[in-house]
Amino acid sequence: MTNRMIAISELPKGELTQAHFTALDGDVPAAGDGEVLLRTILMSIDAANRSWMQGATYRDAVKAGDIMPTYAICEVMESKSPKLNKGDIVASESVWAEYVTRPAHKVQKLPDIRPLSNLMSVYGIAGKTAFHGLVNVAHPIAGETVLVSAAAGSVGGYVGQIAKALGCRVVGIAGGAEKCGWVVDTLGFDACADYREPGLFKALRAVCPDGVDVYFDNVGGAVLETALAVMNERGRISCCGAISQYDTDAPTGPRNLPGLVVVKRLRMEGFIVMDFAKQDATALRALQIWVNSGQIKVFEDIVEGLDSAPAALIGLLAGENKGKRMVRVGPDP
Amino acid sequence: MTNRMIAISELPKGELTQAHFTALDGDVPAAGDGEVLLRTILMSIDAANRSWMQGATYRDAVKAGDIMPTYAICEVMESKSPKLNKGDIVASESVWAEYVTRPAHKVQKLPDIRPLSNLMSVYGIAGKTAFHGLVNVAHPIAGETVLVSAAAGSVGGYVGQIAKALGCRVVGIAGGAEKCGWVVDTLGFDACADYREPGLFKALRAVCPDGVDVYFDNVGGAVLETALAVMNERGRISCCGAISQYDTDAPTGPRNLPGLVVVKRLRMEGFIVMDFAKQDATALRALQIWVNSGQIKVFEDIVEGLDSAPAALIGLLAGENKGKRMVRVGPDP
Repeated sequence: MTNRMIAISELPKGELTQAHFTALDGDVPAAGDGEVLLRTILMSIDAANRSWMQGATYRDAVKAGDIMPTYAICEVMESKSPKLNKGDIVASESVWAEYVTRPAHKVQKLPDIRPLSNLMSVYGIAGKTAFHGLVNVAHPIAGETVLVSAAAGSVGGYVGQIAKALGCRVVGIAGGAEKCGWVVDTLGFDACADYREPGLFKALRAVCPDGVDVYFDNVGGAVLETALAVMNERGRISCCGAISQYDTDAPTGPRNLPGLVVVKRLRMEGFIVMDFAKQDATALRALQIWVNSGQIKVFEDIVEGLDSAPAALIGLLAGENKGKRMVRVGPDP
Repeated sequence: MTNRMIAISELPKGELTQAHFTALDGDVPAAGDGEVLLRTILMSIDAANRSWMQGATYRDAVKAGDIMPTYAICEVMESKSPKLNKGDIVASESVWAEYVTRPAHKVQKLPDIRPLSNLMSVYGIAGKTAFHGLVNVAHPIAGETVLVSAAAGSVGGYVGQIAKALGCRVVGIAGGAEKCGWVVDTLGFDACADYREPGLFKALRAVCPDGVDVYFDNVGGAVLETALAVMNERGRISCCGAISQYDTDAPTGPRNLPGLVVVKRLRMEGFIVMDFAKQDATALRALQIWVNSGQIKVFEDIVEGLDSAPAALIGLLAGENKGKRMVRVGPDP
């Protein structure tokens, strides 16, 4: 039995390509004392993966030669810890590999929700990030206008649907007419502007006649600069990510920062989902209520096979996914 | 009797110069019904004056041909309103002129504090801006490190002294060795870094061994970019102004925004002093306590004569003042 893995052969300068990755086959590792052997079922593919290659963030930087890190859902194949049993389904910091060993205390046992992919989308990082960043950072109120970038993406789609459930007017920003149509027709946003078309400022003005009270920013860069221009006084900006700035060596800052933050008395606040771990149960309960009532629709973008992981990440950075993207390495048990 | 005024002859593109202003003499205006005739005593000179020439902000844009707007302390010479009497000392939105008329209800009667210049420095906009932006926006706690840019300026000097009074470690940023020495030796900051020297990042690292918890930003631009790099996780940035971006047609945004806001989970919040008018009495009481105890020293930079106003503003933008800059148009009564 071999263990297939994908390593970073070289750190990217500029755009990430297939050439930065290499596949290798090794032995299935053995669990040591207090450890578990895990079989990878699903791996999360996130824009943040690319930012880890730019240097230390909220985690250590990824280096050339490392097996690519990821967040994964796995089955316990063997346990040398009293905390976990063979057959348990767990979430863990992991790597792009079929099998890994992890200390049992660093692994989180998951509730019995099927399909398991829901634990990575609406009930996982994507849904929780959307909930905490919108509800606990930006505090939207029914009747306010909420603007969301990367609206067809894994997090943005839930942000908009949660904001609708809270009674807000919701406007998305996405790339291309097809995605914008999907955001409105399928996800139920009130409007969606195409950032690839010229005139984003005018387009946003037209679909946000009362301005924008909350902006949920997944992208940074030029789109953030334009969003700042349509914010209302005392608006709140929840800073979730800066996709536009990850796949480059020459980041550009919005020229109206901090000028418009002063003039409009805006609040910009960054967060990562782990900051709100204590409120996860509240978030999950709310998400389940909205999924059951049909107010939140769940869309997943599952790419098959470990070897597809590099292409899945490269494609995500180019904006090709709709809904939460993940790679299936093995079947649900 | 004539009324000397200074108008903006042409809006600046790029750097502001004397050529953008012109002096003129007109008649002393007559107060209409409900109005007062005011004699200008002191005019506030602020970096924000320059930003008003860039377009609409929290007030209408200044246009070519306008008498230059200002905030002023004045004596009521004639009142056609029951609200105010001849001899009252008031603060008002005004213009660069010896005499103006204003609706009585738009004018604020001032308490009897002498010298009147204190009502423009520590007990005026400068002191209140420092207090509200530090205490009510950034919420510093004793033991935290507070970093302040434009530390020798009108607001920055009070920010640092208030933070010291609250028990914080206080580090300034100022331009030139002489100013930096004054900030430490006279204002009592723990350290001060010179942004005109190369290596600001290393200099800040050296004098902020525990990182920065609160950054009070008066300048934006490259200094903000460097300050973001030394912020601690969950740090707060009080956005008061962006002096570095006002006297130019080509503003530059910090390239690490919003990236570092996400990674470090920072909160950036803009404010203007009027937002906290309801807490002004609390601010003034605290400032008086600290002035009386000697914890806050009051420094004023008073330029004599209405005709000096353009040079006073141009010099302020070049960073030549220490303490609150104002122009004396006439004597205290």
